[in-house]
Amino acid sequence: MNAEIIAVGSEMLTPERVDTNSLFLTGELNTLGVEVVLKAVVGDHLERLGDSIRGAVSRSEILILSGGLGPTEDDLTREAVAQALGRKLVFHPEIAEAIEARFARMKRKMAEVNKRQAYVVEGAEILPNDRGTAPGQWIEESGRFIVMLPGPPHELKAMYERQVGPRLARVVPKQVIRTLEMRVAGMPESDLDQLISPVYKKYENPATTILAAPGDIQVHLRARASTEAEGDALLAEVAGPIGQLLGDRIYSRNGDPLEAVVGNLLRAAQATVSVAESATGGMLGGRITAVPGSSDYFAGGFITYNNQMKTELLGVDPEILRLFGAVSEQAAEAMAAGARRRTRSTFALSVTGVAGPDAGGESAPVGTMYVGLADASAIRVLHRQFLGDRARVRSFVVQMALDLLRRRLMRIDG
Amino acid sequence: MNAEIIAVGSEMLTPERVDTNSLFLTGELNTLGVEVVLKAVVGDHLERLGDSIRGAVSRSEILILSGGLGPTEDDLTREAVAQALGRKLVFHPEIAEAIEARFARMKRKMAEVNKRQAYVVEGAEILPNDRGTAPGQWIEESGRFIVMLPGPPHELKAMYERQVGPRLARVVPKQVIRTLEMRVAGMPESDLDQLISPVYKKYENPATTILAAPGDIQVHLRARASTEAEGDALLAEVAGPIGQLLGDRIYSRNGDPLEAVVGNLLRAAQATVSVAESATGGMLGGRITAVPGSSDYFAGGFITYNNQMKTELLGVDPEILRLFGAVSEQAAEAMAAGARRRTRSTFALSVTGVAGPDAGGESAPVGTMYVGLADASAIRVLHRQFLGDRARVRSFVVQMALDLLRRRLMRIDG
Repeated sequence: MNAEIIAVGSEMLTPERVDTNSLFLTGELNTLGVEVVLKAVVGDHLERLGDSIRGAVSRSEILILSGGLGPTEDDLTREAVAQALGRKLVFHPEIAEAIEARFARMKRKMAEVNKRQAYVVEGAEILPNDRGTAPGQWIEESGRFIVMLPGPPHELKAMYERQVGPRLARVVPKQVIRTLEMRVAGMPESDLDQLISPVYKKYENPATTILAAPGDIQVHLRARASTEAEGDALLAEVAGPIGQLLGDRIYSRNGDPLEAVVGNLLRAAQATVSVAESATGGMLGGRITAVPGSSDYFAGGFITYNNQMKTELLGVDPEILRLFGAVSEQAAEAMAAGARRRTRSTFALSVTGVAGPDAGGESAPVGTMYVGLADASAIRVLHRQFLGDRARVRSFVVQMALDLLRRRLMRIDG
Repeated sequence: MNAEIIAVGSEMLTPERVDTNSLFLTGELNTLGVEVVLKAVVGDHLERLGDSIRGAVSRSEILILSGGLGPTEDDLTREAVAQALGRKLVFHPEIAEAIEARFARMKRKMAEVNKRQAYVVEGAEILPNDRGTAPGQWIEESGRFIVMLPGPPHELKAMYERQVGPRLARVVPKQVIRTLEMRVAGMPESDLDQLISPVYKKYENPATTILAAPGDIQVHLRARASTEAEGDALLAEVAGPIGQLLGDRIYSRNGDPLEAVVGNLLRAAQATVSVAESATGGMLGGRITAVPGSSDYFAGGFITYNNQMKTELLGVDPEILRLFGAVSEQAAEAMAAGARRRTRSTFALSVTGVAGPDAGGESAPVGTMYVGLADASAIRVLHRQFLGDRARVRSFVVQMALDLLRRRLMRIDG
């Protein structure tokens, strides 16, 4: 079964507001094996709202509406659903009385407008609201289910959990959704897709989605099945070949971010790492220490943004900087060596480059980055040319540095 | 004129993901006086996507689609728009060549699938993408405008700002929206709202919105008017009293983030700053160097995550650490002094604290943070107790450190 979600309210169409109810509802529907295939935010406008409701009911088995059940003229969900389904609205005096009683408990008088909330779509089941005045409604229409919930998240959640979830569980065919997430560092999205699409394209179930951030790609698999075992088998059928194609480029299969994976490897190896950062100005250290407990393996770091500090704090030979420049393989090498020596860490990572937007005094073009990795026996330097703005280039190279260390710790060549 | 926005991509229909592009687009459209009346997130499904496109085009003058322009079989926006408008898709070899050249600049070969991105809806104007491979498209259809933009936010923003905004400005009836944004550091949202809501609640125009991030609050004012002067007068009527209430807690009125404001103050004072970071592990340096040209005033930094490094790299007296602990006023003071001495910077900021989720070996509770600021004459240390998870506490204290320096540079007491 598929579901659609419509959030109602013009206030949610501003540049600042996000509809978070749909995230909660999506999570709940997914646990029932129901996929959310479309969600919309519609302002307080009868025609557009009716249009959206008719579209959803024609396409999907379940429609959940949130909001627009308040007492004001702007609250149009009841009318729009009634019109879209060609049903009448019926006044329920017992709802009006319950609202009036609620106000009385708060020592207040019910405003006349609240009576609007006592109108119910003909044939709907009323879902009482113990956290607010607007009752919800549950409607069946030739095998489809239309649910109206109040907009305030704490009212919506309580009503969903106690009244809607159990009703849906009875009508939705028993189904399980199993997911698997593979994360890959430092590979362009299109290269990755070209490599693995011949595998995942053959399958509608599990469905495969690819998400890309700078230097970080997530491959999500979602399988629908009737049992967990069946779902896992479906996942394995696709994850197996994809895993073989991507091999050790996959750094995590459980959602862990790269810094957590590197941290676990360092801890397992009883090793420590230090950093020497120029272009990233501390971001790499910030990422490594984002993991709780990173003090177990993070030895310390140096933010050496200018040549003098590279020499004074890291002991980089001024001749190297004069001959090759601060953005060079030699500088990256000397920075990593210096950080390792001064912190006595097992490994040291260095980053130097031109993040842009201007090249500054550097002869290297914007986006040029060198990453060094020093250990007891050698120093390795990778060179890459990134495209993009300052923030993006810096994010990319942090990812590249972390992955370089991961590969070293896993003894992966390349 | 009304607009609708459709975000395309099944990955945005999970319980975790939010479509942030629509927030940016809504803000931009609003500045043109265009109201967003409906927005939707539609999965990678040709029929549902086509349905949504036809609905939007029938109801509203402007439709902006984001995403679904990638190179894979899942990327269906081009096909769906073509079908919905009854137009053909035409292959443009020059787009394929541009994509190929882009890959070549990165010393890579274009994957065959990228050719899909060279298909354009018949009659559409091509919007070149200088940040990615997917070009956008601009279509006019009997007085309606359909725009396709790439999904990655940095590509979408650049394309909108340079190519779509100016085009829309030419076709949208002239209305002026004037905005003003005041940014405030280190104040709880509820305190701020209690202080200024008696002012802004009296006005519908300008509309006031308050946005809060850890340690950072933005107060947005939006005025609609027929001329800029009228709009600015409306803004001033509300911004004046709010400005008086918030005073020097406002760090920027032009959208500049705190690190840029601090950078400008440092540059104006011909001063430099260094950092000594424990709990933030480099994040503070990362923030300061996020600003292009920060090498003018950023002297360097030390990431001293353990006691030994605090002593060795910063010269913190081991007795201080033994007597008072690494999370103490005395440690923050000694760290700032050490960073300033070793980099010979005008100012030095230090951060030490317990970011959580565990207190580790520290006796101080989770969320305890000390920020030190050293200059030629004195060292000042602020102590705060933050609530929230590790990431939130770390973001808060970075903000607090930057604001401490701002106040010092502006000679604000308190």
